[in-house]
Amino acid sequence: MSKSVDQKLSIFALGGVNEIGKNMYVLQYADDIVVIDCGSKFPDESLLGIDLIIPDITYLLENRDKVRGIIITHGHEDHIGGLPYILRQLPMTVYATRLTFGLIDVKLKEAGLLRETEQVLIHSESKVTLGSISATFFKTNHSIPDCLGVVFHTPEGTVVHTGDFKFDLTPVNEQYPDLHKMAEIGKNGVLALLSESTNAERPGFTPSERVVGMHIEEAFRQAKQKVFISTFASNVHRIQQVVDAAFVTDRKLVLLGRSMVNVVTIASELGYLNVPEGMIIEPAEVNRFESSRVALLCTGSQGEPMAALSRLARANFRHVSVHPGDTVIISATPIPGNERNVARTVDDLYRLGANVIYGSGSVTGMHVSGHASQEELKLMLSLMRPTYFIPIHGEYRMLQQHRYLAESVGVEPGHTFIINIGDVVEIRDGAARLAGKVTAGNTHVDGLGIGDVGNIVLRDRKHLSQDGILIVVTILSKTEAKIVSGPDLISRGFVYIRESESMLDEANRMVTDVVTRLQAENVNQWSTIKSHIKETLGRFLYEQTGRRPMILPVIMEI
Amino acid sequence: MSKSVDQKLSIFALGGVNEIGKNMYVLQYADDIVVIDCGSKFPDESLLGIDLIIPDITYLLENRDKVRGIIITHGHEDHIGGLPYILRQLPMTVYATRLTFGLIDVKLKEAGLLRETEQVLIHSESKVTLGSISATFFKTNHSIPDCLGVVFHTPEGTVVHTGDFKFDLTPVNEQYPDLHKMAEIGKNGVLALLSESTNAERPGFTPSERVVGMHIEEAFRQAKQKVFISTFASNVHRIQQVVDAAFVTDRKLVLLGRSMVNVVTIASELGYLNVPEGMIIEPAEVNRFESSRVALLCTGSQGEPMAALSRLARANFRHVSVHPGDTVIISATPIPGNERNVARTVDDLYRLGANVIYGSGSVTGMHVSGHASQEELKLMLSLMRPTYFIPIHGEYRMLQQHRYLAESVGVEPGHTFIINIGDVVEIRDGAARLAGKVTAGNTHVDGLGIGDVGNIVLRDRKHLSQDGILIVVTILSKTEAKIVSGPDLISRGFVYIRESESMLDEANRMVTDVVTRLQAENVNQWSTIKSHIKETLGRFLYEQTGRRPMILPVIMEI
Repeated sequence: MSKSVDQKLSIFALGGVNEIGKNMYVLQYADDIVVIDCGSKFPDESLLGIDLIIPDITYLLENRDKVRGIIITHGHEDHIGGLPYILRQLPMTVYATRLTFGLIDVKLKEAGLLRETEQVLIHSESKVTLGSISATFFKTNHSIPDCLGVVFHTPEGTVVHTGDFKFDLTPVNEQYPDLHKMAEIGKNGVLALLSESTNAERPGFTPSERVVGMHIEEAFRQAKQKVFISTFASNVHRIQQVVDAAFVTDRKLVLLGRSMVNVVTIASELGYLNVPEGMIIEPAEVNRFESSRVALLCTGSQGEPMAALSRLARANFRHVSVHPGDTVIISATPIPGNERNVARTVDDLYRLGANVIYGSGSVTGMHVSGHASQEELKLMLSLMRPTYFIPIHGEYRMLQQHRYLAESVGVEPGHTFIINIGDVVEIRDGAARLAGKVTAGNTHVDGLGIGDVGNIVLRDRKHLSQDGILIVVTILSKTEAKIVSGPDLISRGFVYIRESESMLDEANRMVTDVVTRLQAENVNQWSTIKSHIKETLGRFLYEQTGRRPMILPVIMEI
Repeated sequence: MSKSVDQKLSIFALGGVNEIGKNMYVLQYADDIVVIDCGSKFPDESLLGIDLIIPDITYLLENRDKVRGIIITHGHEDHIGGLPYILRQLPMTVYATRLTFGLIDVKLKEAGLLRETEQVLIHSESKVTLGSISATFFKTNHSIPDCLGVVFHTPEGTVVHTGDFKFDLTPVNEQYPDLHKMAEIGKNGVLALLSESTNAERPGFTPSERVVGMHIEEAFRQAKQKVFISTFASNVHRIQQVVDAAFVTDRKLVLLGRSMVNVVTIASELGYLNVPEGMIIEPAEVNRFESSRVALLCTGSQGEPMAALSRLARANFRHVSVHPGDTVIISATPIPGNERNVARTVDDLYRLGANVIYGSGSVTGMHVSGHASQEELKLMLSLMRPTYFIPIHGEYRMLQQHRYLAESVGVEPGHTFIINIGDVVEIRDGAARLAGKVTAGNTHVDGLGIGDVGNIVLRDRKHLSQDGILIVVTILSKTEAKIVSGPDLISRGFVYIRESESMLDEANRMVTDVVTRLQAENVNQWSTIKSHIKETLGRFLYEQTGRRPMILPVIMEI
């Protein structure tokens, strides 16, 4: 590729740095923009009522004519969850592997975007040209099959994006990582490496997925009755090992939970999952078999209240129930923030008399991470030998730990860029520097609304959620200085009216006095009257209850 | 004690089983009621706006003449936090040790209850008589000094309540557990044991507090500049070791955070903490000393947003700031639910360039639990050899694990009672059985209100927090079938009005149509009109936004 005069390579993130989830990265050379991944993430407690968070793509919309396409590294929500929303605003060609498209298409179909979206199927040997940037790929291991790392060949040099990865040297279904290819890429010189940091705080080397299979099989052998096992629906390797354990222990397999059924169907159709003919039965058939001949694979490993396992734990599931003596395996580690929900589920399962195998995967052996630990991150860095390093996929402390690891294997101090979303790393003539910002942020999805719930609405929700609202309706006369009707006080989420009548009567009198006094003083601006009502009531109610409800004076004039 | 005819011993919990926190246990024999502990706990996310949860003491209020007093086992919030609220409703004699009273009195003073509350100071050798029940005590180790286990001597037999404990055989400040006394108690026969279950899921033996001291001292030696260390203010042993580490490394000590200052003051006055003369300096004095000569002990080890460490991390603290190269030690493990806040604090500290020592105490060596692990729980059970066992202080799975431990050391199957709050274990002629329930539950504290925020108010807050509220005010004419004024629509927390004018105009028209139509049909019941407005608007707004705001029609007539 010829290098145009006075051109530069820009690298930045629209999501995925200083946060977990909502991944979106951008490479731009001259008038060619390439996007990597389009994730979503769930809001924290403070974003009341918000369903989902996706990247703010203002920059891409402002440069829509330059966008050459989006490459998806794998099929997890934090890499594809934003697609249905983003593609509606910005149609672009999507590049992904077969299983990844299998999962993407479900979403695009629901969104009615499947037909109109241009898709290009890729695999580890593909080569894709996106204007002046071309891309090749390498296979990695992760907790979902068909993951790719991406090698961008730009006029400035080679940029590598690892996607999510671990090094599993004894992988399930022989899906080996492209070790030699990675070595070759590094040998040819890497200008910049973007590598994931999810487990950068974790010492050592993440165990092989295969280890979990042995523990699952042993538990299946031990179990005298039904075995329920819950894991992430997208973890096809894990599911394969559950299928294998069911096979060798001669158990039928029941799938519980919509996403579990979806993924197993898709993965089987595409040949990523090998399920023996006739092994899978319907929930309604369970009671036709001896309990020792049945295994049930369910969603809900994070204690999601509406998922299969949680509903089973609440004895609220059609056709199937947990009996005393049944075994329940939670084949996952709670994601930070989900500990309470998982614990609640375990409590409920114990109440039902189940033998529950739960807790950190490192203790139970029933789970291993899909992400590289420190030694593997050092291995990737050592293979790629990048001149510049941009740690991605992680909160600040993880990026920081990853920086230490990079420097420990020879990345020069000062050559690591810990960036915020929007920060642009500019590389010109082989030299990288921070060069300004592009628009970036969180776009809130609430119901059908995308980005329409702003700070004012959220601030009001927060206020309402804490102390509720007190509405004061008063009708004034246009002609004379008097109250025609009201004030009427209505409380929601503040106090229960029946229990607070005397206080509200008192409040009512106060409002009447305030309005009457102001009218006597010929104060007629509603804004003034309202602020007086707010102030007087606010003080009184705080003295009485120690709470500060939202006070909403409504004045009408007739 | 003579055993009255046809009498029985009742044991139940008003808080502390199937939950962590809000501990309160009750023993009743004939007309004598003894209460143990009076804790509070923080609400989970679902209880919007609630400040605190305390036990429902309806049963005690209905039997107030029988209550002989309350024994407090130690000074943690989950054992004393409810006192100021409960004592106001039900004055009773409080029995506690010196340090425990030191912490209780701060609360009673704030509540204006200190004077009127009768207090009896106890220690491990005390004997108190509470009607037909008498109590003696034994020393235990925990993450706060001056803890007691309680031995109740009743006409039915001996009941032991462990309080919180661990077995620390190399304790700080030589506060050894009363091993031989416990053995003696067990030897004389224990009818029922109530033992804490917080760490019943944790294998092994909890390390001695002394282990932490060595790690702290080492970190203090390594640090080239200021050292910040954050831990629970109530952990006096931990604080003593910080003081010792500061002393041997010749550092002045600064106390940051109100509760840290309180506890250090109280503990020093009462002689539970030995601080060298002149070691403690004021925050304002920090800059007078070389940074390598200063250590700062702060609150905020759980990432509480308003605590000292969090404010330091946000560079928002008077006189003191974290500089690049400073060391920050988090001498605690995040309590489930606090992980995110702690992580956020660590991220911010890294951004300031600090060297942060954080993560699980078992990894960093900077924290050990104050609760007995499985081997210690088995040791307590083996020492006490109870006929009946009631696991307390824990969620269901912990109580269940504790049951397994009890049976593994010889408690007969069927002799363990896993109870809910309110369940009464009745012991008559040496035989125990579940015998009905007493009133029990969660009392919500919100501002000054105790128990006045019920399900309706909470349900409204939940609804308001998710989609906000839309208020529709309409004034009808008394005399003729027409709208005098309105409808006026007011949105809070639903949509931002300026951005949704057209939708709200459309909604306005709809309401007008509905009301006009109903009036034409001579439908005049407000309830009917309101429900029509709700239904019509609800459907429309859901179609438009996918949200379901609370719709509040207000109709006035003039």
